[in-house]
This record gives sequence, structure tokens and C-alpha cells, in this order.
Amino acid sequence: MTITIDAPLDMHLHLREGDMLRLVAPFSARHCAGAVIMPNLVDPIDSFEKLFRYRSEILAACQDHCFEPYMTLFFRAYRRKELELLKDHIIGIKLYPAGITTQSENGVKDFDAIEETLSLMQQMKIPLLVHGESNGFVLDREREFLVTYREIAESFPSLHIIMEHITTADAVAFLDEFENVSATITLHHLMITLDNVIGDLMQPDLFCKPVAKTPRDREALRQAVFGGHKKIMFGSDSAPHPRHKKECIGCAAGVFSAPVAVELLVQLFDEEGCLENLPDFISANARQRYGITPPQKQITLSRTPWQVPDDHGGVRSFYAGKTINWSVV
Amino acid sequence: MTITIDAPLDMHLHLREGDMLRLVAPFSARHCAGAVIMPNLVDPIDSFEKLFRYRSEILAACQDHCFEPYMTLFFRAYRRKELELLKDHIIGIKLYPAGITTQSENGVKDFDAIEETLSLMQQMKIPLLVHGESNGFVLDREREFLVTYREIAESFPSLHIIMEHITTADAVAFLDEFENVSATITLHHLMITLDNVIGDLMQPDLFCKPVAKTPRDREALRQAVFGGHKKIMFGSDSAPHPRHKKECIGCAAGVFSAPVAVELLVQLFDEEGCLENLPDFISANARQRYGITPPQKQITLSRTPWQVPDDHGGVRSFYAGKTINWSVV
Repeated sequence: MTITIDAPLDMHLHLREGDMLRLVAPFSARHCAGAVIMPNLVDPIDSFEKLFRYRSEILAACQDHCFEPYMTLFFRAYRRKELELLKDHIIGIKLYPAGITTQSENGVKDFDAIEETLSLMQQMKIPLLVHGESNGFVLDREREFLVTYREIAESFPSLHIIMEHITTADAVAFLDEFENVSATITLHHLMITLDNVIGDLMQPDLFCKPVAKTPRDREALRQAVFGGHKKIMFGSDSAPHPRHKKECIGCAAGVFSAPVAVELLVQLFDEEGCLENLPDFISANARQRYGITPPQKQITLSRTPWQVPDDHGGVRSFYAGKTINWSVV
Repeated sequence: MTITIDAPLDMHLHLREGDMLRLVAPFSARHCAGAVIMPNLVDPIDSFEKLFRYRSEILAACQDHCFEPYMTLFFRAYRRKELELLKDHIIGIKLYPAGITTQSENGVKDFDAIEETLSLMQQMKIPLLVHGESNGFVLDREREFLVTYREIAESFPSLHIIMEHITTADAVAFLDEFENVSATITLHHLMITLDNVIGDLMQPDLFCKPVAKTPRDREALRQAVFGGHKKIMFGSDSAPHPRHKKECIGCAAGVFSAPVAVELLVQLFDEEGCLENLPDFISANARQRYGITPPQKQITLSRTPWQVPDDHGGVRSFYAGKTINWSVV
């Protein structure tokens, strides 16, 4: 048995830079037609020059694969002229509340001060991608941030807002309240709960932001995704860290799922008996919500088991050492 | 300024065995007059022979310090004859639900099957120490186990039941419902919440079972302890693991607080302006609830800052690298 997917898209991807970029980019470029590239480098992507330099590095790292890096800018107060120069070269602007995840120290501290930029983005039809967490108790952060999502969605009704990597039943419910709001969901949040991270032994390779939540939350995500929700797109949030930054005091947040994402998604949808909804989640919803036309690319998978390596050049991936029932042909 | 404490007692302590025992025992023996020794070794302490061998090893490891190891047995179905032989040599029997923490694989699976042993313990006035967690969602486990505590407390009204290392407001409230129920609280659960463990970078040295809970839960523990609750005893749950078993995939649960426990407790009670309640928490409540008379031993602390070493022979302690304002003279 085989399955063919048109233009898989990863709508939330961290590629990092330098050696790490060269190591991880091919995993995504091999299987995906495109991906939304996060801008939170050590020196965040927030100018024309940085954007083009980074895009060139990414294309070089992707070797000969047919792959479109949909670039994003790191949110700051942008002037109209800057955005006019940039808008045809980006898919959106990514907003991080200050300090909430890896390399977000320069993020937004005062949400009242950003209205002018949001207004420009609305006028110019530039989507707003958001890491939606407050700075409250770790398990309440996403729910608490819904107040901010609501304010922005109501104030800017034609701004396309993407709730990135949602993890809670509350966020899924919120999504249906506003036509201008979309969401991405990761592979790992469809599979794990906080029990997998700290319920038995502690697993640093499953530690990410937002942290995995309760079984009830995971069930809400699964029902929405497997049920074919039209406003939810696949975004892996694949985020590589070298093992010495994971298996240590002060473990970095991030799950590296790029090497297994497409295969495991097929396995999940197959197990749930809803393979017919996979094309929407992994491609069509993103094309529709963002209005993008990715490169023509098809990948075919067969039901052939393979074992995920323990290590990819010093980075441990999601599902390391385990067997996946589907392989890309 | 100095403060002198009579007979500090640690009513919940893991000393392990072999080299680790020899490394960690002196930290407790130096400052405490005695400690309740947990029986969950690789081969659990559940016989006369194992108990005495372990006690001898502990006394040897404690060198010349005046220190009473209050021994416990690992819960199983014991016969009357066994308990008659053992009862004068133990302070209680420690019950672990199967698989709930480090080396608890041989714990209790069926709570209906343990009534006979509990009945014997009640008759012989042998206290029951309990790791009170269900096998549910990691943050719900303590609350869910209260049903079991209630059944045992009601069925055996003169059995002394100790809720070990409680972490939730619900458990604190439960404590007041039954005269025959006591509790221990750790140092670290007075200080940290889940935010410290996974709210920023992930901290394996703060990972323990039960996991630290919410700010509201911590506040309930602090109010009870600093307010002088008479049924709550200090139990560090100090549990050493070598760094290679903490800073790794599959990090072991346990916070090693023995090297800093007494000093940090003085600092906490001092900061809260309730030093007058420290003697109850760290000694008198245990003497009263268990009816024990520990060895005569006093320790004196002065307000002299010291920096906690980063490492104690391959084991990283709680508060490593930080400064504590009080030192044992």
C-alpha cells in the first residue's frame, strides 16, 4: 500500500543557522514543498539585509531539493517604508512575547505599543504569527494569552492571525470564534502529554514550549486535526538543539521532529482511520488560509517500517530509536 | 546572631547503598540527630536480615556522628510473626504504589489485598508511611490518591498514617480531617513550583516525585509549615542520583537536599519571620507524632553566608552554586 501527498507544508519550522542549519534543513527540504521559517536567530531576522542573507543560506543548505522557504520577520515596530520593501518577500511577521522561549529576549514587552505596526500589517495584508503564551504559571500561559489574542482579533478584524503551536482545548475552542484566526499544531502535541515529559523519568528531548499539556487537551487537538478542521495547519515547530544543550542542567526547549514528521503524520492519520483528512492538514489548509501556491512536489510513502536513528549528527530527534510503519519511497 | 536547634530530624531520607551511601550519609548525620531511612533499594528492605545489614552499613557510613537511622520496611504482605520480630527495630513500613517512583516496581498493585497487613500494623502500633500518588495524570496523582488515604484512615482509625512529601493544597486540607494522619513536607516543595522545573529552561536537578505543583499549592504548604502546623514534620526526601543519571535522556527523579537542608530551612523561617516555629517542624512534631526520643544533639547556626558547591562527588545538590545566609557553626 502507498499514499501520495501533494506539496506537504510545514508551517512552523526552526532551521537555526551555520552548521546546524546545514545539518537540519535537508530533512525538511527532502519531504516538504515549503516551510515557514522562524526568525528567532541569535540576531533576530528583522531587516531586509538579514532576511535575504538568511534566505540564501537556507537555499544553499537545502541543496538541490525543490523547497520554498517562506520567510518571516521577527516582530518589532516596523515603519511603513520598511514593510513596503519587505512584504513581497515574507509570509508574515512572528511575534514573541519577551523571554517566553528560545531566543525571544527581544520580543514584545508592551502589547499596547504595537498597535501601529499591527495596523500597517492589516492594511498591507501581512499575516501575524504569534507564540501565544503569557508569563504566568507554565500550564496556564496559553489560556491566559487568549485575552491578548481576543484583543488583537477584535481590533484588527481583517488581520490574519495565526495561533502558533496551540496545545490546549481552550485554544481549539477559541479558534472558531474569529474568522481571521488560524492555528498550527505540531506533530508531538498530537502524540504526547505532560506525562510523557515528566510523568515517569524526565525526558529532555520531549521538552518544548509550549509544554505538552493534559490528556484532555491532547484529545481536543486530535479531534480537531483528525476531524478535518479547516483552519488548522501542520506546523512541526521542529527545533534542533545539540544533545549537550538538552541533556544538561538548563535543558533548552525544543523537539526536533523534522526527520520523522511526514512519516509519523501518515502513521497517525492511518491509525485513526482518517487518511482522507491528511492532505488538508499538511497542505491544503495552509494554501487556503495563507493564499499561497507552493512548488509542485509530490511525495509517496509505502507501508515499510524503518527505525529512527538514535542521533542525527549530535542532535536527537523525536521518536529516536523507535520504529515508524511508513517510509517515504 | 546564632540559633540553636535541638535534635533536628529528617523524617524522610534516601541514603541508597554502597559508595553512594558512604558519600551522602555524612551530610545528614552531621546535622541531624536522626532520620527516617527509606527502604526502596534495588533489592528492597523487607526482611530482618536485610534490615540489619542495611542499618549496619548506614551506621558505618555515618562515621562518628551521633545519628539514629530510623529504619523502615518496604511494604508487602507481612505475617504476624515477621512483624513481631521486626517491630522494635523499625519506625514504620513504607508503602509505594507499584511503579510510581524510583525503585518502586515491587510496590502495591491491589489496595484491597493489603488489609490484613494494615490490620496487623494497627494492632502492633506500626506506622504506615505512604508515597501517596495514583497512576493518573502527573499533576492529579496526589489529589486522586486522597481517596485511598481516606479509605485507609477510616478503616484503620488508630493506624498512624504519614502522607509523605505532600505537595498540594488538597493534601494539606485533607490532613486536618483525620487525627491519625500526619504528613511530611520537603524543603524543595516549600521553595519551588513546576515553573522552576519546566517553566524556563528545564532543570533536571529539580525534578522529583511528586513533581512540584502550582504557586497556589506551594503557598498552602508554606502557610501550614510556617504557621506552625502540629501534624507536619520535616522530611527532606533528599534523593541523590549521580549527574549522569540526571543530565540525560530518562532523568531520574529526586532532589538531593541533604547538604543544604538545615541551613536553608533556617533561612526560610528567618525570611518569613517565624523562626519560633522551626523547632516544631524540624523536630518536636516528629517526636510527638511518632512518640520517639532522638539522641541528644544540638546544632548551632550563625548568620554567615556560604556558597553551595556545584558538585558533591559527582552528585549535584539542591541550591548548587547559590549562597545560603546561614552556616552550621
